[in-house]
Amino acid sequence: MEKTWTVATTKWDPAAIVGNGNKFMTGNGYLGYRGTLDEFEAEDYVAVNLLGLYDRHGSAWREPVNAPNPFFTQIRVADQPLSVKTTPLVAHRQWLDLKAAVHHRETTFAVDQAQLTIASTRFASGANDHLLAQRYTLTCDQPMTLTLTSAIDLAIWDINGPHLTVQTATPEAVQLQTGEGETVQVQTQLKGLPQGTPVADQRLLGTTWTLTLRPEVPVTFEKLALITTSHDRDVAAFPASYTAALKAHEHVWTSRWARSDVQIKGDVQAQQALRYSEYQLMLLAPHHLDMSIPARGLSGQTYKGAVFWDTEMFMLPFFNYTDPQVASKLLRYRIRTLPAAQAKAKRYGYEGAFYAWESQEDGRDGVSDYNVTDVFSKRPMRTYFGDKQIHISGDIALALWRSYQQTGDEALLRDGAAVIVECAKFYYSYSYWKPDKERFELLDVLGPDEYHERVNNNAYTNKLAQTTAKIALAAMAQLAALDPAAYATACAQTAYPQWQARIEQFATHLYVPAPAAKTQLIAQFDGYFDLENVLVPAVRARLIKPNEYWGGAYGVAADTQVIKQADVVFMLQLFAQDYAQAALAANWRYYEPRTEHGSSLSASVYALLATKIGESDWAYPYFMKSATVDLTGDTKQFAGGVYIGGTHPAANAGAWQAVVQGFCGLQSVDGKPQVHARLPKGWQQVSFCLQQRSQWYRAVVTQTTATLTPISDPS
Amino acid sequence: MEKTWTVATTKWDPAAIVGNGNKFMTGNGYLGYRGTLDEFEAEDYVAVNLLGLYDRHGSAWREPVNAPNPFFTQIRVADQPLSVKTTPLVAHRQWLDLKAAVHHRETTFAVDQAQLTIASTRFASGANDHLLAQRYTLTCDQPMTLTLTSAIDLAIWDINGPHLTVQTATPEAVQLQTGEGETVQVQTQLKGLPQGTPVADQRLLGTTWTLTLRPEVPVTFEKLALITTSHDRDVAAFPASYTAALKAHEHVWTSRWARSDVQIKGDVQAQQALRYSEYQLMLLAPHHLDMSIPARGLSGQTYKGAVFWDTEMFMLPFFNYTDPQVASKLLRYRIRTLPAAQAKAKRYGYEGAFYAWESQEDGRDGVSDYNVTDVFSKRPMRTYFGDKQIHISGDIALALWRSYQQTGDEALLRDGAAVIVECAKFYYSYSYWKPDKERFELLDVLGPDEYHERVNNNAYTNKLAQTTAKIALAAMAQLAALDPAAYATACAQTAYPQWQARIEQFATHLYVPAPAAKTQLIAQFDGYFDLENVLVPAVRARLIKPNEYWGGAYGVAADTQVIKQADVVFMLQLFAQDYAQAALAANWRYYEPRTEHGSSLSASVYALLATKIGESDWAYPYFMKSATVDLTGDTKQFAGGVYIGGTHPAANAGAWQAVVQGFCGLQSVDGKPQVHARLPKGWQQVSFCLQQRSQWYRAVVTQTTATLTPISDPS
Repeated sequence: MEKTWTVATTKWDPAAIVGNGNKFMTGNGYLGYRGTLDEFEAEDYVAVNLLGLYDRHGSAWREPVNAPNPFFTQIRVADQPLSVKTTPLVAHRQWLDLKAAVHHRETTFAVDQAQLTIASTRFASGANDHLLAQRYTLTCDQPMTLTLTSAIDLAIWDINGPHLTVQTATPEAVQLQTGEGETVQVQTQLKGLPQGTPVADQRLLGTTWTLTLRPEVPVTFEKLALITTSHDRDVAAFPASYTAALKAHEHVWTSRWARSDVQIKGDVQAQQALRYSEYQLMLLAPHHLDMSIPARGLSGQTYKGAVFWDTEMFMLPFFNYTDPQVASKLLRYRIRTLPAAQAKAKRYGYEGAFYAWESQEDGRDGVSDYNVTDVFSKRPMRTYFGDKQIHISGDIALALWRSYQQTGDEALLRDGAAVIVECAKFYYSYSYWKPDKERFELLDVLGPDEYHERVNNNAYTNKLAQTTAKIALAAMAQLAALDPAAYATACAQTAYPQWQARIEQFATHLYVPAPAAKTQLIAQFDGYFDLENVLVPAVRARLIKPNEYWGGAYGVAADTQVIKQADVVFMLQLFAQDYAQAALAANWRYYEPRTEHGSSLSASVYALLATKIGESDWAYPYFMKSATVDLTGDTKQFAGGVYIGGTHPAANAGAWQAVVQGFCGLQSVDGKPQVHARLPKGWQQVSFCLQQRSQWYRAVVTQTTATLTPISDPS
Repeated sequence: MEKTWTVATTKWDPAAIVGNGNKFMTGNGYLGYRGTLDEFEAEDYVAVNLLGLYDRHGSAWREPVNAPNPFFTQIRVADQPLSVKTTPLVAHRQWLDLKAAVHHRETTFAVDQAQLTIASTRFASGANDHLLAQRYTLTCDQPMTLTLTSAIDLAIWDINGPHLTVQTATPEAVQLQTGEGETVQVQTQLKGLPQGTPVADQRLLGTTWTLTLRPEVPVTFEKLALITTSHDRDVAAFPASYTAALKAHEHVWTSRWARSDVQIKGDVQAQQALRYSEYQLMLLAPHHLDMSIPARGLSGQTYKGAVFWDTEMFMLPFFNYTDPQVASKLLRYRIRTLPAAQAKAKRYGYEGAFYAWESQEDGRDGVSDYNVTDVFSKRPMRTYFGDKQIHISGDIALALWRSYQQTGDEALLRDGAAVIVECAKFYYSYSYWKPDKERFELLDVLGPDEYHERVNNNAYTNKLAQTTAKIALAAMAQLAALDPAAYATACAQTAYPQWQARIEQFATHLYVPAPAAKTQLIAQFDGYFDLENVLVPAVRARLIKPNEYWGGAYGVAADTQVIKQADVVFMLQLFAQDYAQAALAANWRYYEPRTEHGSSLSASVYALLATKIGESDWAYPYFMKSATVDLTGDTKQFAGGVYIGGTHPAANAGAWQAVVQGFCGLQSVDGKPQVHARLPKGWQQVSFCLQQRSQWYRAVVTQTTATLTPISDPS
């Protein structure tokens, strides 16, 4: 095991069950299999999380469905079940092979005077969306008789379930139906063991064997499982064998790594964390489903399995540069869900497209008006994520435009121009004209810093809205030149000719808070600098209960300048080219001690902007924080008794951005990539491949040099 | 004692000390003397509350100053102090003679085997602002030796004090200084007792006598006190005697009652409550100081002794019709404090005049941004009374205009036109233009219903703002015609020529929520009808703690249609002539079961509108609730440990309005009064005098008739 290609634990820690389930995830963009152990059950947060298949149980939050676990494996000796949780352990190891994307565990149990070792591997096939594979080996040091059960476990971990009822079941397969009428099928094939006794009860569908083991003679079985749903448009089939499946899987991952691996010389910790971050992103890429990536990936049902701005603002650059087909898929999800965004705008009384804050499969908004519970009164608190966080539409418009600019994908412009125009229309209709100041304003919004609710003229939001208007004009002009027929279609779809003048006026006259002449500081929103000027520790010290909400109307941060996450700094990071270095630096320095980083999104943004102001050593700890978020598991797992844990793909992607776009200064200028040397102390060299407009390049950046060389496809 | 001219209690109830202090108030518009007993001390809420003299102690709320009590009187028998609180009582009575505006108490104490009776009278001279008078008589049924102390009590009840430090002191007089450097003087004269022993300690300045009483031979003394301050512009002088002072006082009150008494035949309860209400109003009228009437009158320091919209929207009509000189004084306070209103507008970034929500002597805003405490977390809650309750400026503009219209007082137009124009400018500068709807809107306001914060397009506020703009145009046109020089001055003062077109545009294009075609209902603000549709009892049942705030971001009412007080109904009551009867009735019926009446202002508004939709019997309980608010004392005295009790002059005035403008339908049409018969069941006749444009009238209204007869001044 090479350390930088491996993530491992060599001790058993019952408190780490949840965290390891995230950390040791496998997945393939169709499903995610949590990093749990073979003998684990629902109470251990086992889940086969399905992308894009949602269900509402009763009046609870609508959430993604977890399929039954096809790989439940139970050993009993003298009728006692063996488990890391209860059986004395001689040794235990669990690890991910990042290169091959395979999960491993190896546990030696002390059974009376004997030792029994379980070694298992598991992967979610990169070559076959539906395929999960398990290989399981038993070895003992003394003769031993035991029973082995391998079964589909129907006891499913749900946050707001149950979602599935069994329609048909055999010891090898089951079909289930969701409350909303979709179906999920699990089929299994097991090889390597003789005929056993079928098991088919309320919970388990499978087989039990009584086995007599001879010392040091391993017994191995291989099990394949196909997971399918009524959403599928393809046909699933079993491969010839576990070995054949593994070979096809490894082939895919070898090719992925050839394109995406970023090699860091001089920092083993960073190298490992970054490879792990890329692994997490690649296991989520939806290659076939018309879906995008949820904020907690495929690690469970947290945040309703919904797609947030995380995808466009954090994950997209990674895919733009390493796998543009996936990038296109992510954006086409937004193009496909335009009608839902238009419906949301209409519902709130606006024109155009107001995208969902928590977008589910068809673009419907999973957000609740009451997302937080008051720890004092236990009452739900009205929050404004859904109705006031209007920057989401601009985030999507900007991502579409930048992706088109970078990849040159004309089909994206053709199909996406209407999205951008609809987003611009939305902002126009949301805005007000301030007569005495002769400007448009955007009032009563929630910016990225969610702790300050219902603010006016949030700099981030206004800049995004203005950019959306400009992009809409540019995109339509470009489309008109490129493809008059597509332009005519987009005009018909958006009524652009009637809107063009308004969008122009809006782009020119929207108020965007600018750096103050003297201080270079940008107010996060109207009146921000009038709030109490305290730093994070002082505000933290005011907490009465550790888990109280910092935001809302009366939270400890609400009337102070302390913010949840990068906001002005995010805006400056996105639009650094529009601002003087002095402004970038002044705002970084001002906002940094006032930012709680209550969101895992925040750290990488601070890292990125720090590299742009020549402070890569300030950036480094923020990069590492972002890159290790799922390795350390140092995030909240529960809030008010509700599980909110999972993986953090946006932070993983932010870590990649921090290295490639930050320390290596990768940017696109006129459709051509550029790199710049900004490595942190101690790093000797960073090298990686990237694609732009169908041309591959190899970048090599040292402390003093930065070179780009055109190459052929590295995969 | 005629019942309808008397308010009395014949039992001693220690729980009623605070309430009786309010109920048995005396005052003269310069000071208020709470209805406490002679032996009471600071802990019993004794106060001589001074109009317009404010002080801030430390960082606490700035509040009006209470002067020392010149009438502290203590009897000791065998060294035991006698007090209703501790001494066995044979009989006890306390009452107000409303006609004479004199406070009485008569208490018979059981002292060993003997009985000792105290009888005292007290009044705040209606003829001399500075004068307080006390007459005190002792009678026993058996020979008795006692000591009597009559002193100025320097132990002052303060909410946020102390405010005064002694500068000079004698047994008869004291001069004190406030923290802000103003001075207060108390001088006393006592007659009827021989030379006693001077008392002059930290707390008491006065004299002690040892008296030997013979059975049934009363001992009486009379004490006069002059209260003066550094604010005075007149000279205070003692009258010849208590008797002379009482005569002058009674003369004034006889004349007041001749002008203002409303006689109700057929309802003794209503008659008494209404007389009491008028008494409360008349004791507050500032005849000489350039001040207005605080929301809690002169009953103490509650609400910072500040002047609210209560004066203009509730009390003013009473004075317009019965004592226009006082009405003018109240309005001139607003004219005088225009600069403070302009400064407040500027401070918040607006033009024109934004009047103080809690206006102190020079118009400064006493309001706090944190007016409420969260009962769960004990943290102060950000409230929006000061910065968002913008209807205050319109309330004042409307009151000025209607007062001018009714009284024909041209000087008021001359001096007040600038106020109205400045208020219109304020609304214009506060507003936003909604381009796609082609209208002005008023966003992020707090309407009269304070439970729903930061709402858009509050119907009450928008109607007031539109009316203010219309009034500004009308007032300036009228002034131009009437007095070109004054018009030129007002133009110079307000830059009216540059503003006129904008004000016209605003008046025409401001969005004012209108009755829906089908239901005739007016939305209190944007989205009101989307809130949870529940009634008051259901919302009350959700309270976790009895004293929690219903409003704020998360209060039980916040996300429901339950409101604190009349809002749309208030707007309709003020502008009934602009709406169809069907709209008036539909909104009354809709909002009534959704109104908590958490403010004492609410009841009379519901009463008034009910009379206008022909439902005087619905109006009656609301009228009685308003008229008896200080008689029953059925209001909150404490909130979060802070004293918030006091008298309710706006409710008193609302009761007068309900009878005179409601049941008797008094209104001005083209400068002429009209009355209409709308008496509730059981009332045979209501008669009263009123003045309009210097002409007095006598109105007589029965169940079927309503007549107005011109008369000469009834006083």
